[in-house]
Amino acid sequence: MHKYSDIRVGVGGVTGYTGLELMRRLVRHPHADVRVAMASSTSESRRIPALGRLWDAPVEPLDVERLVSETDAVFLALPEAIAAEIGPALAARGTRVFDLSGAFRLRDKGLRRKWYPDTKLEAPGSTYGLTEHYRSELKNAPLVACAGCYPTAAILSLRPLVAAGLIEDGVIIDAKSGVSGAGKTPSERTHFSECHGSIAAYGVFAHRHAAEIEQEVGTAVTFVPHLVPLDRGILETIYARLKPGVGEDAISAVLTAAYAGAPFVRLTGSDLPEIKHVAHTNFCDIGWRVDRPGGQLVMIAVIDNLVKGAAGQAIQNFNVAYGFDETAGLD
Amino acid sequence: MHKYSDIRVGVGGVTGYTGLELMRRLVRHPHADVRVAMASSTSESRRIPALGRLWDAPVEPLDVERLVSETDAVFLALPEAIAAEIGPALAARGTRVFDLSGAFRLRDKGLRRKWYPDTKLEAPGSTYGLTEHYRSELKNAPLVACAGCYPTAAILSLRPLVAAGLIEDGVIIDAKSGVSGAGKTPSERTHFSECHGSIAAYGVFAHRHAAEIEQEVGTAVTFVPHLVPLDRGILETIYARLKPGVGEDAISAVLTAAYAGAPFVRLTGSDLPEIKHVAHTNFCDIGWRVDRPGGQLVMIAVIDNLVKGAAGQAIQNFNVAYGFDETAGLD
Amino acid sequence: MHKYSDIRVGVGGVTGYTGLELMRRLVRHPHADVRVAMASSTSESRRIPALGRLWDAPVEPLDVERLVSETDAVFLALPEAIAAEIGPALAARGTRVFDLSGAFRLRDKGLRRKWYPDTKLEAPGSTYGLTEHYRSELKNAPLVACAGCYPTAAILSLRPLVAAGLIEDGVIIDAKSGVSGAGKTPSERTHFSECHGSIAAYGVFAHRHAAEIEQEVGTAVTFVPHLVPLDRGILETIYARLKPGVGEDAISAVLTAAYAGAPFVRLTGSDLPEIKHVAHTNFCDIGWRVDRPGGQLVMIAVIDNLVKGAAGQAIQNFNVAYGFDETAGLD
Amino acid sequence: MHKYSDIRVGVGGVTGYTGLELMRRLVRHPHADVRVAMASSTSESRRIPALGRLWDAPVEPLDVERLVSETDAVFLALPEAIAAEIGPALAARGTRVFDLSGAFRLRDKGLRRKWYPDTKLEAPGSTYGLTEHYRSELKNAPLVACAGCYPTAAILSLRPLVAAGLIEDGVIIDAKSGVSGAGKTPSERTHFSECHGSIAAYGVFAHRHAAEIEQEVGTAVTFVPHLVPLDRGILETIYARLKPGVGEDAISAVLTAAYAGAPFVRLTGSDLPEIKHVAHTNFCDIGWRVDRPGGQLVMIAVIDNLVKGAAGQAIQNFNVAYGFDETAGLD
Repeated sequence: MHKYSDIRVGVGGVTGYTGLELMRRLVRHPHADVRVAMASSTSESRRIPALGRLWDAPVEPLDVERLVSETDAVFLALPEAIAAEIGPALAARGTRVFDLSGAFRLRDKGLRRKWYPDTKLEAPGSTYGLTEHYRSELKNAPLVACAGCYPTAAILSLRPLVAAGLIEDGVIIDAKSGVSGAGKTPSERTHFSECHGSIAAYGVFAHRHAAEIEQEVGTAVTFVPHLVPLDRGILETIYARLKPGVGEDAISAVLTAAYAGAPFVRLTGSDLPEIKHVAHTNFCDIGWRVDRPGGQLVMIAVIDNLVKGAAGQAIQNFNVAYGFDETAGLD
Repeated sequence: MHKYSDIRVGVGGVTGYTGLELMRRLVRHPHADVRVAMASSTSESRRIPALGRLWDAPVEPLDVERLVSETDAVFLALPEAIAAEIGPALAARGTRVFDLSGAFRLRDKGLRRKWYPDTKLEAPGSTYGLTEHYRSELKNAPLVACAGCYPTAAILSLRPLVAAGLIEDGVIIDAKSGVSGAGKTPSERTHFSECHGSIAAYGVFAHRHAAEIEQEVGTAVTFVPHLVPLDRGILETIYARLKPGVGEDAISAVLTAAYAGAPFVRLTGSDLPEIKHVAHTNFCDIGWRVDRPGGQLVMIAVIDNLVKGAAGQAIQNFNVAYGFDETAGLD
Repeated sequence: MHKYSDIRVGVGGVTGYTGLELMRRLVRHPHADVRVAMASSTSESRRIPALGRLWDAPVEPLDVERLVSETDAVFLALPEAIAAEIGPALAARGTRVFDLSGAFRLRDKGLRRKWYPDTKLEAPGSTYGLTEHYRSELKNAPLVACAGCYPTAAILSLRPLVAAGLIEDGVIIDAKSGVSGAGKTPSERTHFSECHGSIAAYGVFAHRHAAEIEQEVGTAVTFVPHLVPLDRGILETIYARLKPGVGEDAISAVLTAAYAGAPFVRLTGSDLPEIKHVAHTNFCDIGWRVDRPGGQLVMIAVIDNLVKGAAGQAIQNFNVAYGFDETAGLD
Repeated sequence: MHKYSDIRVGVGGVTGYTGLELMRRLVRHPHADVRVAMASSTSESRRIPALGRLWDAPVEPLDVERLVSETDAVFLALPEAIAAEIGPALAARGTRVFDLSGAFRLRDKGLRRKWYPDTKLEAPGSTYGLTEHYRSELKNAPLVACAGCYPTAAILSLRPLVAAGLIEDGVIIDAKSGVSGAGKTPSERTHFSECHGSIAAYGVFAHRHAAEIEQEVGTAVTFVPHLVPLDRGILETIYARLKPGVGEDAISAVLTAAYAGAPFVRLTGSDLPEIKHVAHTNFCDIGWRVDRPGGQLVMIAVIDNLVKGAAGQAIQNFNVAYGFDETAGLD
């Protein structure tokens, strides 16, 4: 069903959790015409049960030539080494790329080499894809590096406060994520019996999302992610010291101004948000408490890692990049 | 710590969920002296974190010679092809074997070939290891085929009723199992995000536990297992038509008589048992309801699949086989 | 936002899980204009956080006069005693009623008195609201008794088979439900720590949904529901003996014919459906296996209890009752 | 079954989760002879199903006179207002009290009044019951205020480091708890459907355990607890700035010395512990990472909130108070 004036869209990497979320929304998107669904894990065209009623055509092997000739824009939910290779190639030939991997997020060459050693990429001109802070840059962006899941909640919470000079250095981000954030590949880490009834911290001082957060927030952070026994959702508890005299009003004023026109950021003030409020939606809910002016700030930010933290955000970037309503396809 | 007059014990297959449960109980067992812990998945001696405070010695590669020379009895929680090979070899050389695989459970050669095609075993003289119904046979058994998890709950519920002629043919067993029953090997089936928030039937008309149940109960059954989002525990809902005139009293009388001296079978009557009542214990709780004499019987049986359905039962068999208190090591 | 030619809609009982699901869908429904949200649990107008971004107006106390004067149709997700009282009053005054309680489902006076003793209702002329089997009756129905959650999956599976004479008497329905099915009122039964890691059967031979199923299927059933540790979703495993000679083909042919034009029934054949396939959707997926012609039939039916089992089905009935596209507001 | 030279024990408050855990362990304790089980929620003697096979005698209404005359020591798992009233009365008459409520934990009168306003208690001479740090004080203590669940993990982690002067002010404790920590009383907060699939922070800047931690650690803390969808277990992620020059070795040395003789504290170093390692045990596992000397310390401490955080700890205190093996009854 081709809609007049639609954007012809391709999706690379439809077999993972993020790819499935992308497909669910894109097939109903009022301005997207999905032309091809590809996967890097298949070498021949085949039907995939999980896409059952969404996409009845077969899933094809990755094919840059077809993407170039048959689509205007592609969403890539691929391993980053593959994204690093085909993303710039597509962009160079005029197919706009919305990449959901980490391959193009870090601007600093040294950090990119450190955290994405497999990608061996020369710095391509990418636009960081956190819609709320990059609306104008997204307009003509050929290659969008959609923000990571943990960074999305952290940056939306902290970037306006740091920019306004409200908080001291030494920010701590204690993040809790559902298991879908660990991807679909079976492992001991994602085995039901290993996750159920337990919580585990991981990647302490060694998670590449810390570098991404620091790049976008502009201050050093201590970032500790935890795996918790739920499927989808991230809750981040953010701790910062307020600058002298800064109180709840200043925090509220700065955040309110920052997200005045943002349809997917909901500020809940001292009513702290919970994951269930945002599951299956593209919202990021942010609440906060202050013990006293100049004292301790505690912020709580929640997102659905597969939606605002991945597929939803990519579509939100697509909407802004093409001048559609920012919420198109995202209810 | 060698205890005088203890049985020298070896465990083969300590890295799975069942092996771990065995080790937890055996190291504290008053009459077992664990001498060696082995795994089929390792080719060299190594320490295993999950055994941390239970077993500080390394885990060794499987070694029949060492088992023969250093132990009196071995517990095997191994893939059945391996169990099928070494079980009879050990038994032939005087080491008593408590096997937790399915390799030796089916007495019928044709059924064994059908359901355990990898095992290629000649029928060895094994004793079926459901303690409550094989106490005297266990006394001098060289090779005990411990009952399967689903069969344990089903046989304990049905065998006395069938033997007493209380129920008609056409029994239905609807079984619900926690995910640990699917084993520790990571797979899409056991991925947290695939199990969480879902239920799935599997193995309909094609689960080898049906044959095991039929062998021990003496009537044909329709057996449908389901995977549910919890870690450990099995609940079976058993449906049978009562013979004319048979009512709740007859059911109650037969079961009470059957399990008069059974420390791990608890009859709860019309108070239907739940998995939480037996989790982490060696109990099998059985409750039942009858709509009217000669009508429909609904029984509910619950066990912890890793304890009464595996490790606990094996130790219970060991206790009876050696003449120890049946509950030794099993509180 | 009033849409020209929309139906003016009221919702009674917006504070429970079903009421919330109704509101989520109705506020976006292309032909419904929600005018008022009421609750029986409130005696004054107040805002309700859970409705936050869905419904910014206050929730009002129940008020039949207002419903009559301000709406064309009402959805009632109320305790059945209240529904029994106001449903007929509304219908008599020309407001069409889509009732989600059990108050009007049973046609037999004696059964209604037995299973709904609090409702003391005279038999009003209601239409049973299982869309797939009552499309023509729904057209002009003043009072629709929307089908119960368990009955929806059972009736969709069994009614065509019984009508076609394919199965013997003595059907067994083993149902597993998520905890939201027990309602929002806190109790020991719904306490997280009581449900987590456990499964419990309840209402054996004493659940009123059995009577509802029997009324609509036309044969006696043994119905055993179980509470399982997930939030939303029902899986029913249905056991029936096939009439002599009846095999998989006959089952398939009858079901395919029955649901040829049904947008929300998906027949999956021998691929058995799982709850995750239908969670958050209005689909009922039905699969089945047969051991041999004339033998045992095992069917698996899954729905989301809050959607196809409640709010979604009510809207589906509304759509058919008003001649809208059956799927309106239900993607 | 009275054991010669046993301590005659009573338990007040056996119907909650903590009371049940106490009973499970005390009835098997080698030196405790449970004489009476009481509950504040009952006004007449009655049998309680959950205690089924543990305690076949009825549960009695609370009765100070009987406790004085029939027991040597009592464990109180009661609402704090009741504990505040009867604890000192019992102690004054020679019955030793192990109280699991918060009534006697805070030494500062003002803080006690602020955080336990219902208790209206005069400061009785209580001993803080965190075994590892109060062994000698426990010997002759008439009234032991067993440590709270969150404080147990926090104090065991931080107290030695603060005492040794290794960390700066400004400690942050991000705590995650299973739902059993919220108690057995049904509420919206503990409803399965509200907890499942979600995480929520609560009590920010307003949880009385912060005062208890500060009292025992000797430094101010920012404490944010979260409810996560699991039944039992607490994981605390603790953030502290190291004093200049302090590195991993110093942390390790101080903790190793502090817990050299502590059978229930396991130091895991840079292997961070997970809740599943301690569930159903009395262990507190503590791990840590340091980014660089003088930099950021991240500690992870895990306990089972119902065992080391409540019932197990109370028994450990009892063991030390009476000079028994510290681990008696706690395997």
